[in-house]
Amino acid sequence: MNGTHHDGPGNPGGPAGGELGGRRQTYLASVGTALPGEPVDNAALAKTLGVNEEWIEVFIGTRTRHFARDLGTGEVRWSLADLCAQAAQRALAAPGCDPGDIEFIVLGTATPDTLMPATVNHVADQLGLDQVPTFQLQSGCAGAVQALSVARSMITSGEYRTGLVIGGDVCSKHLDLQRDLSGAAPGDLVNFVLFGDGAGAAVLTDEPRGQRLALREVLNRFTGLNREPGQVIEWFGLADRYEDRQALTEDYKAIEESVPVMAVEILWELLGELDWQAEELDFLLPPQLSGRMTRLITEQLDVPTAREVSCVAETGNNGNALPFLQIEKLLDEMAAGQRALAVAIESSKWIKAGFALEKI
Amino acid sequence: MNGTHHDGPGNPGGPAGGELGGRRQTYLASVGTALPGEPVDNAALAKTLGVNEEWIEVFIGTRTRHFARDLGTGEVRWSLADLCAQAAQRALAAPGCDPGDIEFIVLGTATPDTLMPATVNHVADQLGLDQVPTFQLQSGCAGAVQALSVARSMITSGEYRTGLVIGGDVCSKHLDLQRDLSGAAPGDLVNFVLFGDGAGAAVLTDEPRGQRLALREVLNRFTGLNREPGQVIEWFGLADRYEDRQALTEDYKAIEESVPVMAVEILWELLGELDWQAEELDFLLPPQLSGRMTRLITEQLDVPTAREVSCVAETGNNGNALPFLQIEKLLDEMAAGQRALAVAIESSKWIKAGFALEKI
Repeated sequence: MNGTHHDGPGNPGGPAGGELGGRRQTYLASVGTALPGEPVDNAALAKTLGVNEEWIEVFIGTRTRHFARDLGTGEVRWSLADLCAQAAQRALAAPGCDPGDIEFIVLGTATPDTLMPATVNHVADQLGLDQVPTFQLQSGCAGAVQALSVARSMITSGEYRTGLVIGGDVCSKHLDLQRDLSGAAPGDLVNFVLFGDGAGAAVLTDEPRGQRLALREVLNRFTGLNREPGQVIEWFGLADRYEDRQALTEDYKAIEESVPVMAVEILWELLGELDWQAEELDFLLPPQLSGRMTRLITEQLDVPTAREVSCVAETGNNGNALPFLQIEKLLDEMAAGQRALAVAIESSKWIKAGFALEKI
Repeated sequence: MNGTHHDGPGNPGGPAGGELGGRRQTYLASVGTALPGEPVDNAALAKTLGVNEEWIEVFIGTRTRHFARDLGTGEVRWSLADLCAQAAQRALAAPGCDPGDIEFIVLGTATPDTLMPATVNHVADQLGLDQVPTFQLQSGCAGAVQALSVARSMITSGEYRTGLVIGGDVCSKHLDLQRDLSGAAPGDLVNFVLFGDGAGAAVLTDEPRGQRLALREVLNRFTGLNREPGQVIEWFGLADRYEDRQALTEDYKAIEESVPVMAVEILWELLGELDWQAEELDFLLPPQLSGRMTRLITEQLDVPTAREVSCVAETGNNGNALPFLQIEKLLDEMAAGQRALAVAIESSKWIKAGFALEKI
């Protein structure tokens, strides 16, 4: 299915970017990512937590992850701002990109370093940017897609030509090995083995540059009406009494039931919006909850002609960083004319999201 | 200066909305606000905190504020989602607005109920909305302007016609009267008398409806390069050791020095972008830090022909809610053809922001 899509419907992919049905187009010129420190494998983590290594393999299916904090001491080795700035610097160093062109920054994260300043402003400072609008979306697994959507609107509105989109999370702010975990609920221990830390970034432009990756469509759909959250992450203020509370709670049964269904729905909604056929897909970037869940979801998405591009088994679930890590892997393989669809499901209050890429 | 601006440069304000130099226009159709419970006056607060009432009057200049939590017990009486949904319901109940028209929601806040789900999704649920994109900006005093900017880009991109913009904060999550405040630093006590809780909302459209308030310009400029934050609000995770730490810290000297200067800068940048003259302004919505600071800043803005529209002395500094509270007051007075400029300064990592309104 290579190099055959240039004249598909709704998809001119012309040489100069330009308009599609009167709307401006948006392109990814480059992607950069950052993972903190060395990967932590299941043997090391099992020993630290006092759990069985095989339990991690079977129930999570994730082999390694990276932590920005020292889990033992709580010491912050990399802030979220550090990771995001590092990923952005790598994206900005790519051919066709110039930090001087950046007109705005959009960051998506569930785990900001502080409530104020928004972390995006520390990132701007580290990047040496000034006088630009900065936006930070509070978001979970659909957050990178939301950030891409906001940036795309800013470019297609005609007011901006080039922007920086970043996604990242430092989940280890809630992982406290100094607490007594001997009586911890399995749901609490799971958070130590499910999550990881990291960041990713992309330069978005109004014309093809660098990687020449057209962002053909972005969908974000809240579907949480009258539904209980599947995942909750709390923060604590000084007025909170939180002894013995759990900060991260998941309803695994609801997640296992709903996420695959929602993933299939948004895949077909994306294809419908694009007027693309499933057989035309060269690559599929499925949701990255955990190694095991991603395998299950990919089976149900059932697009056998498309090659799966996943990273969670190596990176852990690092939230808003995941789609950028997937796109970076995708770019190693993707040839001009090829198409990819990405699907992200946020189980917090049930958001289905996805986007479409085409290399031109 | 009434009714004289319709044919000013860069400002066609035509009857059908439509294009301005090829760009679509955006309008506020209605505004709604929500303040929790009865106002708490300085006498009551001084007694509770064990401080002098006159100290509040002189150094803060704020007379009343509203709290969503019971400061004594910590009990949550209104969540941020509750306040935001109430404000949005009031905006949606106005003439010319229909909840069925809402195609997206953008919420700005510094104090989300949880990190996940983003509070905007609980608001969508309370409003009975589904299948729409929801965005939540992590933002301080410039947050409502950021939310207006994102919503405006979404509408001017041509992809959406009608959206809901919300701003709100529940600062009392950090105000803990159960702690021993007898040895508290003045900077800690100030937070009890400076901040308040509340929310506001507006319906944005691509053509004039309801209040027919054209959003002529929105500016957001990060100016924190190489500058220390003026205000920090922390959140605490389970891995944080936070005994005896302060969650809200301000550098009042930096704020008093920088905010008036930045306010003057962004006022003139806005006027320049619009090609408006200062004398043409009918109303000025200045930054709302506190009653005293707002008086000082308004003097320095020095636009004697414009009537000041402020609320902070009655509402306290409730962050992302403030511009909506100001616009609601503005609409009581504004006649067709009149112009208003709003200025908001975020001292966290130094963002200057503002927007321009014209009633048509």
